[in-house]
Amino acid sequence: MNILVINCGSSSLKYQLINSDSEEVLAKGLCERIGIDGVLTYQPAGGEKEKSEIAMPTHNEAISAVLAALTGEKTGVVKSLAEINAVGHRVVHGGEKFTASCLIDDAAMKAIEECNDLAPLHNPANLIGIRTCQKLMPGVPNVAVFDTAFHQTMPEVAYTYGLPHEYYEKYPVRRYGFHGTSHRFVSAEAAKMLGKKPEDLKIIVCHLGNGASICAVDHGKSVDTSMGLTPLEGLVMGTRSGDIDPAIIEFVGKKEGLDLEGMNNVLNKKSGMLGISGVSSDGRDLGDAAAKGNKRAQLALDVFDYRVIKYIGAYAAAMNGVDAIAFTAGIGENNIEMRENVCAHLTYLGAELDKEKNNVRGEERIISTDASKVKLLLVPTNEELAIARDTLALVK
Amino acid sequence: MNILVINCGSSSLKYQLINSDSEEVLAKGLCERIGIDGVLTYQPAGGEKEKSEIAMPTHNEAISAVLAALTGEKTGVVKSLAEINAVGHRVVHGGEKFTASCLIDDAAMKAIEECNDLAPLHNPANLIGIRTCQKLMPGVPNVAVFDTAFHQTMPEVAYTYGLPHEYYEKYPVRRYGFHGTSHRFVSAEAAKMLGKKPEDLKIIVCHLGNGASICAVDHGKSVDTSMGLTPLEGLVMGTRSGDIDPAIIEFVGKKEGLDLEGMNNVLNKKSGMLGISGVSSDGRDLGDAAAKGNKRAQLALDVFDYRVIKYIGAYAAAMNGVDAIAFTAGIGENNIEMRENVCAHLTYLGAELDKEKNNVRGEERIISTDASKVKLLLVPTNEELAIARDTLALVK
Repeated sequence: MNILVINCGSSSLKYQLINSDSEEVLAKGLCERIGIDGVLTYQPAGGEKEKSEIAMPTHNEAISAVLAALTGEKTGVVKSLAEINAVGHRVVHGGEKFTASCLIDDAAMKAIEECNDLAPLHNPANLIGIRTCQKLMPGVPNVAVFDTAFHQTMPEVAYTYGLPHEYYEKYPVRRYGFHGTSHRFVSAEAAKMLGKKPEDLKIIVCHLGNGASICAVDHGKSVDTSMGLTPLEGLVMGTRSGDIDPAIIEFVGKKEGLDLEGMNNVLNKKSGMLGISGVSSDGRDLGDAAAKGNKRAQLALDVFDYRVIKYIGAYAAAMNGVDAIAFTAGIGENNIEMRENVCAHLTYLGAELDKEKNNVRGEERIISTDASKVKLLLVPTNEELAIARDTLALVK
Repeated sequence: MNILVINCGSSSLKYQLINSDSEEVLAKGLCERIGIDGVLTYQPAGGEKEKSEIAMPTHNEAISAVLAALTGEKTGVVKSLAEINAVGHRVVHGGEKFTASCLIDDAAMKAIEECNDLAPLHNPANLIGIRTCQKLMPGVPNVAVFDTAFHQTMPEVAYTYGLPHEYYEKYPVRRYGFHGTSHRFVSAEAAKMLGKKPEDLKIIVCHLGNGASICAVDHGKSVDTSMGLTPLEGLVMGTRSGDIDPAIIEFVGKKEGLDLEGMNNVLNKKSGMLGISGVSSDGRDLGDAAAKGNKRAQLALDVFDYRVIKYIGAYAAAMNGVDAIAFTAGIGENNIEMRENVCAHLTYLGAELDKEKNNVRGEERIISTDASKVKLLLVPTNEELAIARDTLALVK
């Protein structure tokens, strides 16, 4: 079965066509500048990346262009749309309504729409992607895979904020967490690498990319995670502040003449490692600048690592122990020094990094010593594959 | 030497007269409703508590009333003001200027005043208390003991927020931490109880009262603490939210029609355990309500405990290990069940609570088993004594 995986943003769209039998990616790419002009990037497996300007006034033209490329005579990977058997959609926010992926019907569409308020930039775009696929590929089943669903197993004690309870009843303000598809995929993969089931392990997954979150997976279930109502909470990220004293918002807002919206904008877009360093939000740029003696770039990297260390410690306590710690996503998979710095603080847990094994990027590998009591792992994430698997499971 | 310890608020004032040789409290009490009408509470050692209405239009009359009571013919504890040799003042915020207690001179007064901006409710009141003592007891030395000073040893990586660096340069926005006098006193006391020096230990101090903070004391130095720029950050407290997703402030503010100030007020005064439970900010009330089946009261207590657990875990990681964990302040000293719940999550560290030894309130005691790798301690705090000791050291 061939499954089209779509991650639809307000002005962009990423896609992969995956053969669910072989789990091979047949083709992948993205649409950019939807609603402005339109650029399609398309790359068939083993082939060259093609970039073409195609008018994309709406998502309709964007997805049409993707389907045309996938079925194209010259570099297409399927003969006709009939060979695309299902579509899996990444949906950012499932609120408390979705505890797992689901086949999309009218009721599901309505329920996703009811979560728009919690992810006003993302959910409406996800819905547009779904509606467009329904129109362009009538009869083909669509599946929604939520960033939040995996975390719906969190106990009340972990998702409750110290806020007036009515905010939970009315809005509902609580910890939801994100990157759930990745945390689920990576924790399952880590268990497999250790020859165990997720149900037999306490795992901490560190999904460290431009957006970053950590998750405590206790016997296969998410029991806590660092992102909260929104993806702003938790670790220091590329441009996001992560945890701060909430009183800072009024303190700085008054001094800088910024209101609630202005401060939220600063915290999401001008903070994090970019804010600390004044150099860049990208770990590689910061590494280069730090190597040249830029102290604030080094500080940004150090603060990033330090917050990761503290969250790992917090979740080890939350689960009263940890068997395995997995690193994933852009920084987690590729920043050797970060993993070394973080693990150097975890010997009290009985975690012992093997520096030679750790000297690798983006490869599935156990990076702790054989004697290490807590296993350390590098596990490349693959959210698209996870979405394809969920889609297959729901449509077959 | 007799030392008067003063903790001056905007409309109230707590005092103790301590003999620094015997470390006995000769008398103690408080002034309330300063600027409104005025109530003096006075209790000499071994005597009854006396309450009297005395007009206190300003702090001048309040401190005069205290001095009159201390030297009173009937229940006074000293013959004349000449027997009060020094005054130690609690000062909330020392910013980055004060790394230790100090004798107050004009330069110190100016420097404290420059920190007013960081503690607009507290520092101005502390300054009034100092000025009044200077006027009423000319020639008697005054010493300032800061809530923040002990934490000035925190490394940059712990005090830096993921915010635009200019906020640190201009205001300066950073983690300061509070309860420093208590964290210092308790960590030193804990080391003494274990027959060691603070310099030989990694200690986590849990100061859990209506305001609550946790501190990582690495070889005698504060290296991290849960309160931040203000006392709002960190644990869930009586009425304070502690850590939340900073994006909640805009999200809720817009829905509730509250601006920066309105939201800050909610987070400081209507949140925390009061907000979650809707019952009370007081742990004892919550315990009673929970025992009668109130689920939200139980949830508030559980969330309180859970956050303590996570901070202990985070600081164990920050120090790469922990030798001792000390509980102090109202909840820390008196809530047996809380200590049991928290320590039940810490067996992965090798911490083993002795439930019988733990069955005690407000008494200095090691509460872990003899075999416990990490020592657990109950250490009553005594900030007044710590202030008196600092004062003595600076004036003798």
